[in-house]
Amino acid sequence: MRFLRTLPLLALPLAALAGKPAAKAKAAAAEPVRPVKTFHVYVNDGMWKLADGTEFYIIGYVRYNDNWEEAPAGVQLPSPTLPAPTMRVTEGDEVHVVLHNMGHHHADKGSQIINVPHTIHFHGLDLVQAIDGVPDVPAEGLPDRVFSGVPVGDTYEYRFAAEHEGTYSYHCHVDAPTHILMGMYGAFIVDSKTPHTMYGRHYDREYTLFYSEVDTKHNEAIRTEGTYNMMEFKGDYYLLNGRIFVSNLKNPLSTVADPNSVIVANEGETVLLRILVMSFEHAFVLHPHAYHMQVIGTDGRPLTAPYWKDTLPVQSGERYEVLVPIINKRNKVCLSCGMGKGVSIFHDHNFRGETSNGQYPKGPLTVFVVK
Amino acid sequence: MRFLRTLPLLALPLAALAGKPAAKAKAAAAEPVRPVKTFHVYVNDGMWKLADGTEFYIIGYVRYNDNWEEAPAGVQLPSPTLPAPTMRVTEGDEVHVVLHNMGHHHADKGSQIINVPHTIHFHGLDLVQAIDGVPDVPAEGLPDRVFSGVPVGDTYEYRFAAEHEGTYSYHCHVDAPTHILMGMYGAFIVDSKTPHTMYGRHYDREYTLFYSEVDTKHNEAIRTEGTYNMMEFKGDYYLLNGRIFVSNLKNPLSTVADPNSVIVANEGETVLLRILVMSFEHAFVLHPHAYHMQVIGTDGRPLTAPYWKDTLPVQSGERYEVLVPIINKRNKVCLSCGMGKGVSIFHDHNFRGETSNGQYPKGPLTVFVVK
Amino acid sequence: MRFLRTLPLLALPLAALAGKPAAKAKAAAAEPVRPVKTFHVYVNDGMWKLADGTEFYIIGYVRYNDNWEEAPAGVQLPSPTLPAPTMRVTEGDEVHVVLHNMGHHHADKGSQIINVPHTIHFHGLDLVQAIDGVPDVPAEGLPDRVFSGVPVGDTYEYRFAAEHEGTYSYHCHVDAPTHILMGMYGAFIVDSKTPHTMYGRHYDREYTLFYSEVDTKHNEAIRTEGTYNMMEFKGDYYLLNGRIFVSNLKNPLSTVADPNSVIVANEGETVLLRILVMSFEHAFVLHPHAYHMQVIGTDGRPLTAPYWKDTLPVQSGERYEVLVPIINKRNKVCLSCGMGKGVSIFHDHNFRGETSNGQYPKGPLTVFVVK
Repeated sequence: MRFLRTLPLLALPLAALAGKPAAKAKAAAAEPVRPVKTFHVYVNDGMWKLADGTEFYIIGYVRYNDNWEEAPAGVQLPSPTLPAPTMRVTEGDEVHVVLHNMGHHHADKGSQIINVPHTIHFHGLDLVQAIDGVPDVPAEGLPDRVFSGVPVGDTYEYRFAAEHEGTYSYHCHVDAPTHILMGMYGAFIVDSKTPHTMYGRHYDREYTLFYSEVDTKHNEAIRTEGTYNMMEFKGDYYLLNGRIFVSNLKNPLSTVADPNSVIVANEGETVLLRILVMSFEHAFVLHPHAYHMQVIGTDGRPLTAPYWKDTLPVQSGERYEVLVPIINKRNKVCLSCGMGKGVSIFHDHNFRGETSNGQYPKGPLTVFVVK
Repeated sequence: MRFLRTLPLLALPLAALAGKPAAKAKAAAAEPVRPVKTFHVYVNDGMWKLADGTEFYIIGYVRYNDNWEEAPAGVQLPSPTLPAPTMRVTEGDEVHVVLHNMGHHHADKGSQIINVPHTIHFHGLDLVQAIDGVPDVPAEGLPDRVFSGVPVGDTYEYRFAAEHEGTYSYHCHVDAPTHILMGMYGAFIVDSKTPHTMYGRHYDREYTLFYSEVDTKHNEAIRTEGTYNMMEFKGDYYLLNGRIFVSNLKNPLSTVADPNSVIVANEGETVLLRILVMSFEHAFVLHPHAYHMQVIGTDGRPLTAPYWKDTLPVQSGERYEVLVPIINKRNKVCLSCGMGKGVSIFHDHNFRGETSNGQYPKGPLTVFVVK
Repeated sequence: MRFLRTLPLLALPLAALAGKPAAKAKAAAAEPVRPVKTFHVYVNDGMWKLADGTEFYIIGYVRYNDNWEEAPAGVQLPSPTLPAPTMRVTEGDEVHVVLHNMGHHHADKGSQIINVPHTIHFHGLDLVQAIDGVPDVPAEGLPDRVFSGVPVGDTYEYRFAAEHEGTYSYHCHVDAPTHILMGMYGAFIVDSKTPHTMYGRHYDREYTLFYSEVDTKHNEAIRTEGTYNMMEFKGDYYLLNGRIFVSNLKNPLSTVADPNSVIVANEGETVLLRILVMSFEHAFVLHPHAYHMQVIGTDGRPLTAPYWKDTLPVQSGERYEVLVPIINKRNKVCLSCGMGKGVSIFHDHNFRGETSNGQYPKGPLTVFVVK
């Protein structure tokens, strides 16, 4: 590779450990011991069903249990979800993430997707790791998994310190557009050490809203063939936390049947919304009918000059943190929302997003519910 | 609906009145009387013609006269325009908007659009209303018009206080993408009590620039059938205040023949531009050839840290307020603009927007004219 | 033209000179003499080749040599490049740009593109020029080249003062979407008088990253016919400084073989990135895997409240200046990047941009290389 130069050996900073457990920095005694949080992550594939009956093939990251513990040998893993489960740590933690590439078992036998490597990119955590290897020759000595991803049947342990509170994401970066849009993405939250604060500001409740674009033809082609001409990619479903809203408010698969997506709050509270997007070309432009949102941070960094929006554009990969004060909303009706008292809608105003499969109101619409 | 809870009865804040005129808050005597501004709005449909001869079916909001007075029975209503007329009030006013759904009379007899309800969403005014009804059961007692919209032949009166100066919009929210993109949108301006100021900053003149995306095939399908597969939506016209620019500068239907769109100013003045967008997926990216614009507010709230842009992206539903100082521009020629002295162009730099129906320069281009 | 008014004669400000050299302002003696920088720019057409073997017709601006000197008569001009060469001046300079329309010689004989005029729009420099002519009648006396562009065989000299440091662009504005997307664009940089600073902030190194969208079918149609129905425009290539990244890291036409695109820096340095975009409808959403970028300015103006982003959306015509501190990155490996030590990727996260011609990773991906 023409652009690589010889690099002198550097002292490894304590903040960036990686590789085998034996490689603990001896200087650790000079620094307070960081709490260690370990996450065992497994690749798995399966089918995902939406509220309108549409079902499509997805590939995602799963965990054995809510504690992200290592799965006993031979146990059956849970089916993947959209999005993948949220990883959560506290600022200052040392984080160990063990990626297990279990292969795919729900695609067609002839599909090229059966045997592909995977990685995890911790988007926004700006991670670079010290890796054992010959320092003068930048590529030599680096394990193949670093270049080509973790192959089927193999594992890899990422280790890093979470240095900045914020909202980040984790997603695959092998054949990135396809793997990500197949479902290999989830939120990664770094909390402040002070509970219920974000960038020093108090909040009472929080919700993580992960928006995504799907082309079901793309997912089906990957399931059967393993390849897709991305010039043909045309989104047909626009999801919030993996779901769409439908006219039947009682549909159990709707966005408004998901407690992670319905923004419940008490009158007088301040709600924190963590907003994330993965898409091929759609901008989600988020509009609550009854509120203004104060944008306090983005991409894991506070804004020195927060601003208010009632219509917030978010592009693929971006994150925003907004605070929503719930003032004088209880028992009130939003007349354009078509809902009951204390309930108002929050949806994508970039209208392709609200017409999944060509039909309104199928899209990433959810509601605020004030108690 | 699983997410609704029982809600205790709240004292109704004076700022949020709604319902029948008899429901005047008795506590009004304790508060200065707000000026009341009343707007009678009528739904109407018709044809709209562009400068290149294209004509298409639209549905809009119309007013009987410039004072938004109630139309005498049996009178013929004006044809709809793109956009709908601007509603304008002063900060602190009590606003009454009476929506009259007069039905559609210019669609094909067999079209499903003949008999549909409508609503008005006051975008950005964060309105929630106290509605009479049984407080413990959030939905019971609420009129059907609150849930499903105002049916043909019916009316509904919205009442609210305009609490924040700013630029907002009003639009339908029944089958929102279709109704809005058919033409059911207009600007709603809340002026500061101090004339010629916006967020405390002085301006000499102002213009309201409402950009929109149209798919004429969609409008035609609504006229004839009343339905359209929104997966097929592909914008073919990009409008400024309902018009396109064409090469023939004397065309009376061009943007530059509209005194509401041509930005006329005297040397030395500061111009306020209120920028609004309604679109399906197009971002309008607005660029004046001879100026920088100071962004002072968005979505009806001032920025604590205004910034300068010569190329400003605006997505569907957003609003921006910008100040443009006109300094040393009189009698000067913009050499890339192809216009005369004191005249410079202001257009969409996201170039699909400037190639309506596949042909440049058909798009939302207008001019600054300095006197 | 209805919107023109009679204009009184104004004293011409010294900052805006134009026309023939004889028109030097007599008041120049009262003001320090500005350094004059002259650029002779020639229109030329030719073929452009990408790393995957794709070749297509482009039209661009070329220079005779690195000093932008006037070409001797009869000499063969260099082939055009994507983007056109960067023009660079210092704040306060008087700039003379002589546009020579040499016509097109590499299109089909029957193509309408053979004989078209061209102009240069200096995007963001807010230029308006005093032009000789009868002051009371704004259009009379203005040369035809001001209205219709510089015809084949003719030249035009633009003169202006560069008053604000910043990153700007220059591009054609005749049949703008087509001419620009054919290749008639380049960066125009105005440096601070203080070296290695931008808006008063120090930087050690800088890179200019110009992103663009191409529809090769559009370029071919222009070559053969000279016209294209822009409703058919569909981008198939997404470029960084005219190149795409491909899997073969040694490909000499790849982004990572271009020293202008590979972001090389020493540990501890601060890198300035100047980011520009020209596109039809694609938003480039730029994400470095190992860094946050501090946005310090946009469109040639500093931000009073800089902010940090790891995923930055940029629309057609916008510019951003960002500072990237390189801290603790030397000799480290980015585990999701698939590269060696000190190397991390920087790409478009709006994934259509990374799937040129339907195939990942063909897109505007480049790398940071820390030494």
